[in-house]
Amino acid sequence: MGVGYFVDSCRSCDSCSKGYESYCPQLVPTSNGVGLDDGGATTQGGFSDVLVVRVHYVVRVPSSLPPAGAAPLLCAGVTVFSPLVQYALNAPGKHLGVVGLGGLGHLAVRFGKAFGMKVTVISTSPGKRDEALARLGADAFLVSRDPAQMEAAAGTMDGIVDTVSADHPVAPLLDLLKPMGQMVVVGFPSKPLEVPAFGLVTGGKRVAGSAGGGVGECQAMLDFAGEHGITADVEVVGMDYVNTAIQRLERNDVRYRFVVDVAGSKLGVAA
Amino acid sequence: MGVGYFVDSCRSCDSCSKGYESYCPQLVPTSNGVGLDDGGATTQGGFSDVLVVRVHYVVRVPSSLPPAGAAPLLCAGVTVFSPLVQYALNAPGKHLGVVGLGGLGHLAVRFGKAFGMKVTVISTSPGKRDEALARLGADAFLVSRDPAQMEAAAGTMDGIVDTVSADHPVAPLLDLLKPMGQMVVVGFPSKPLEVPAFGLVTGGKRVAGSAGGGVGECQAMLDFAGEHGITADVEVVGMDYVNTAIQRLERNDVRYRFVVDVAGSKLGVAA
Repeated sequence: MGVGYFVDSCRSCDSCSKGYESYCPQLVPTSNGVGLDDGGATTQGGFSDVLVVRVHYVVRVPSSLPPAGAAPLLCAGVTVFSPLVQYALNAPGKHLGVVGLGGLGHLAVRFGKAFGMKVTVISTSPGKRDEALARLGADAFLVSRDPAQMEAAAGTMDGIVDTVSADHPVAPLLDLLKPMGQMVVVGFPSKPLEVPAFGLVTGGKRVAGSAGGGVGECQAMLDFAGEHGITADVEVVGMDYVNTAIQRLERNDVRYRFVVDVAGSKLGVAA
Repeated sequence: MGVGYFVDSCRSCDSCSKGYESYCPQLVPTSNGVGLDDGGATTQGGFSDVLVVRVHYVVRVPSSLPPAGAAPLLCAGVTVFSPLVQYALNAPGKHLGVVGLGGLGHLAVRFGKAFGMKVTVISTSPGKRDEALARLGADAFLVSRDPAQMEAAAGTMDGIVDTVSADHPVAPLLDLLKPMGQMVVVGFPSKPLEVPAFGLVTGGKRVAGSAGGGVGECQAMLDFAGEHGITADVEVVGMDYVNTAIQRLERNDVRYRFVVDVAGSKLGVAA
């Protein structure tokens, strides 16, 4: 069993009714949230040794998946899986761009390939080419700072999942899309995205944000991951290593997620 | 019969195959375009007294509609009709925001109301309130520069059609959308749209551009307009008034489209 990044929601708003609980205005995050019906206690997430959660928000983790590698699927996995399905990008032969190769990006590559898509990784770091192509199985790699490479790939992609939270230009990414292509932003750059109206309008292009996923989407993602053997690459650490892990996270020094093995419980927490 | 804002396209690319000819890279605009198969002659649009067009690009104008009021539907009409249908906003009870009340905006109000939607006009000009509510039949009116009015309407709209080509902030418009709401940009501001990632992602919100519409969409729009008696508000002028009309257009001094009555032909041209 697993619990995602929220443990409760109102179950009556439009978003909850449609199975997109992650957009419920009363969503209770698993960590540092405020409970709806227990006197408003702060949720402690996977750092606690017990967790109270309404059964609706519990998902089945396929027994074929190792728990540590499956833990990050419950947040990072559904975050990249949900938009591929919602925007009907998950079809064999479609071309997906994955911007940023980290915790989210490496899972987007794996889901895209499992859906039969052509996957191109777009990164500022030329050094990630081998990782993208040889180890994760992406079909192509673009250095976003190389205008010639970007130009050569213009108009070729059906969809792009942009996982980058550092500020970065999105106009060159939109140029990679085919007419009516869909870009989905799942990162949190602090400055507004600068979207040129001319290219957006004349190309009928689309930019959406996407946050996590609903409970049903999370279960569908886990079932799919089980069928295709998809897990996250993780480094399992003990609770006494958490502070160091957080320092390393701030330096992006992890490939790709830490999972804390909470002694004495069955819980794992992915950071 | 009518001809929209393009007279030819390749008929073989993805966009043409799907009936979205307006995104064909070889689209031949009706005015000032370069023909594909006639030696590359420049197209003269409605200012000419004859027009050569492949039959696929000719649409039927319902005989119930007056030709002058129907002429702008072939460009402005389909431009606002297409996104309402494409993004499934055209359902009774859905709440549509129309940004800007001009040639495009007044038609968006009429189509929205004919679809049974609740329609709110959003404008920088408080003076357009009566026009929006009393004459065009919109349900509500927001002055975009009044933060209190905008705040009170936050999170209430299923979709927004933004028709404004002047530079303007889009973040306050995105705040009007419900979770997973869709904004469609059909204007051409010169500066990039500034889209805050945080609100986009946490609300699962969507921003798309949309240019005109395909031939099939144009025919569907005309059929719908015929059923509902929708036309554009026009000022019909003679060819000798064209230069004055263009000067007045630059001052936004028309309600809402000029139509030139080309003497000796059956053609009209909307500007």
